[in-house]
Amino acid sequence: MRIDSVDIFYLALPEILDIGDGSQDMALVRVRAGGATGWGECEASPLPTIAALVTPASHSACRPVGESVIGQRLDSPQDIARIARAVGERSLDLLQAAHTWSGIEIALWDLLGRVHEVPVHQLLGQRTPAPKTPYASQLFGDDPQQTLDKARASAAAGYRAVKMGWGPYGRGSVAVDADHVHAAREGIGPDGILLVDAGTVWGDDVDAAAARLPALQEAGALWLEEPFVSGALSSYAALARLSGAVGLAAGEGAHEASMAHHLVDHGGVRFVQIDTGRIGGIGPAAEVARYAQSSGVQYVNHTFTSHLALSASLQPYAGSTSDSICEYPVELSSLARGLVRQPIERDGDGLVRAPEAPGLGVELDLDAVRGYLQDVEITVGGRTLYRTPDLVP
Amino acid sequence: MRIDSVDIFYLALPEILDIGDGSQDMALVRVRAGGATGWGECEASPLPTIAALVTPASHSACRPVGESVIGQRLDSPQDIARIARAVGERSLDLLQAAHTWSGIEIALWDLLGRVHEVPVHQLLGQRTPAPKTPYASQLFGDDPQQTLDKARASAAAGYRAVKMGWGPYGRGSVAVDADHVHAAREGIGPDGILLVDAGTVWGDDVDAAAARLPALQEAGALWLEEPFVSGALSSYAALARLSGAVGLAAGEGAHEASMAHHLVDHGGVRFVQIDTGRIGGIGPAAEVARYAQSSGVQYVNHTFTSHLALSASLQPYAGSTSDSICEYPVELSSLARGLVRQPIERDGDGLVRAPEAPGLGVELDLDAVRGYLQDVEITVGGRTLYRTPDLVP
Repeated sequence: MRIDSVDIFYLALPEILDIGDGSQDMALVRVRAGGATGWGECEASPLPTIAALVTPASHSACRPVGESVIGQRLDSPQDIARIARAVGERSLDLLQAAHTWSGIEIALWDLLGRVHEVPVHQLLGQRTPAPKTPYASQLFGDDPQQTLDKARASAAAGYRAVKMGWGPYGRGSVAVDADHVHAAREGIGPDGILLVDAGTVWGDDVDAAAARLPALQEAGALWLEEPFVSGALSSYAALARLSGAVGLAAGEGAHEASMAHHLVDHGGVRFVQIDTGRIGGIGPAAEVARYAQSSGVQYVNHTFTSHLALSASLQPYAGSTSDSICEYPVELSSLARGLVRQPIERDGDGLVRAPEAPGLGVELDLDAVRGYLQDVEITVGGRTLYRTPDLVP
Repeated sequence: MRIDSVDIFYLALPEILDIGDGSQDMALVRVRAGGATGWGECEASPLPTIAALVTPASHSACRPVGESVIGQRLDSPQDIARIARAVGERSLDLLQAAHTWSGIEIALWDLLGRVHEVPVHQLLGQRTPAPKTPYASQLFGDDPQQTLDKARASAAAGYRAVKMGWGPYGRGSVAVDADHVHAAREGIGPDGILLVDAGTVWGDDVDAAAARLPALQEAGALWLEEPFVSGALSSYAALARLSGAVGLAAGEGAHEASMAHHLVDHGGVRFVQIDTGRIGGIGPAAEVARYAQSSGVQYVNHTFTSHLALSASLQPYAGSTSDSICEYPVELSSLARGLVRQPIERDGDGLVRAPEAPGLGVELDLDAVRGYLQDVEITVGGRTLYRTPDLVP
């Protein structure tokens, strides 16, 4: 079959708060081919993402993403890889292209799985989805008491693993940060898995991060996530030499597989976290999963938005029994919650698996989110390059 | 003073050819503060670049670039660094932001230099611009005879250094590529400096690149540029071990300073090439220049567009006597040529220096390029976020 159309829909809550909640808006991708439809989500700023889809060309290596996708043959995973190479070459100098392509790539896998009536992880050669321990992913409280309450609530809701991140952490004193970490440990209990996310707050400042290690070590945190921006490899390596039992985790910012490889090769991370909505989709994420496994590093999904994105993020390592942790967002906005009819629930043992239905295995409730649709119109030189099409037929 | 406005203008030739000529369109930045005006250029796809300036926010780390710039204080280089940090944090997850910010940062330096009546390199602590040997930067011919003719023409025009790149190179046989390289050497003569640019054509394939080394070594090429995509550090390192007298050059794709550091630290490059219009402007480029000097690696500007961009690209290493080569585009489009009233010419010895007039030291001829202006209008949810303002008052 041939790819007939690629549309990106911009959905957003009526008010976007200045907080670290990435589920307040959405770049939702719809791809149509051979009478079938696939869906994906870019973890990206929607407007520049749409612009990268439709922009006029600048030169031979700076061309719109849509041009490399629409009209292409799509019958097998090899076709997705071929289109990925074309986008990589033809949009090399268009920085936003990686984010735009990520959601399209995911939608192509979804579509292919639906047409062949198999889940995406089977197309990747993974037979049976392995159980993952989901961690409740949420923002730190405004003060340690609130952090304690949030951690307790997660434990009471049956989560054996909890991640607290962003919010005030790293922005105040070392002592207050320690109070937050100890409060989180107290809240989840002595046996829970505690994960801490610094949200790149220290830039590349090893000393600032190292000052937080004692509290993390005392509280038995499994990992410290993103102490630094993705590119600060030498800072990662320096902190890894000091961090003892606390492993470093990073990779969510990777917009190509090689960036994740660098964290493994030169950053000393013990956990590599990949967002399929940024790295170029499911194919490159699966490549990173294989690379991590061969390097003794654990692969973990990164996802902070809808269960469509959650399913996409689980596919690359769905069958792996050695990579047993998964991020599981619990503070979703009404937009991200509303998008999917039946969310990916924990089973009786509190574990999560990639869906076994065809494609990404989630059905969308477009009527539930149509109220969040932002009509976009982009005109260049009097020519309309994009006008939001109908979301619900 | 406070920054009053930031505008990005999209200019383009009537027809964009599917060739590697990056001067066919332009994202031109105008910043106004305290009654003065500064200009810069993003080396970027203009439409997504504008979208990243004005897009609504997604969350606390995915916000429009303009928000972190407009209204800010601008009195010294420290203010530019402060705004850069804000953009880095507040637009962390907006991939295109680095390209958008690059042109703005350049315009801020231009404005600051004009207000203080000093050239930008003096603001960077570099007193006297050192002479650079410009290399005529151009595309390979369609066949070896055409390459020979182009190289001869450059030598006849007085260039002691010539770079041939892109076009057919790396896309056909090893033998034809060798013919092109030998033709280029024949054209420039035995004493000329020969540089070859593969334009990332081999992805990360070390064998494909290594097969071209014998011809490059026989022809005495000083460097082989971008055999691989920027992120393929281990491929760079592997090829560097094989390349003998031919140094590897790379870095133009770097959209943050750390990516250039990685090429130095882990890629084995001998030349690091920085485009100020992509890496976040003149400040991060100057940081890379210092890092390269301390690591025994030569810094080289990358620029393929107007002489406004050329001036910006010379500033970070204007005063360095050890980094003595500069890229000098000779096949500019009428748009890129027309933008600047007095281009940066070679002196009687065929050498080039950063301009000594205030700011970037180039005056624009807006009337000459106004015919290339592409009116852009972006509307989201019924609200017009961008409409191209007047370029010429």
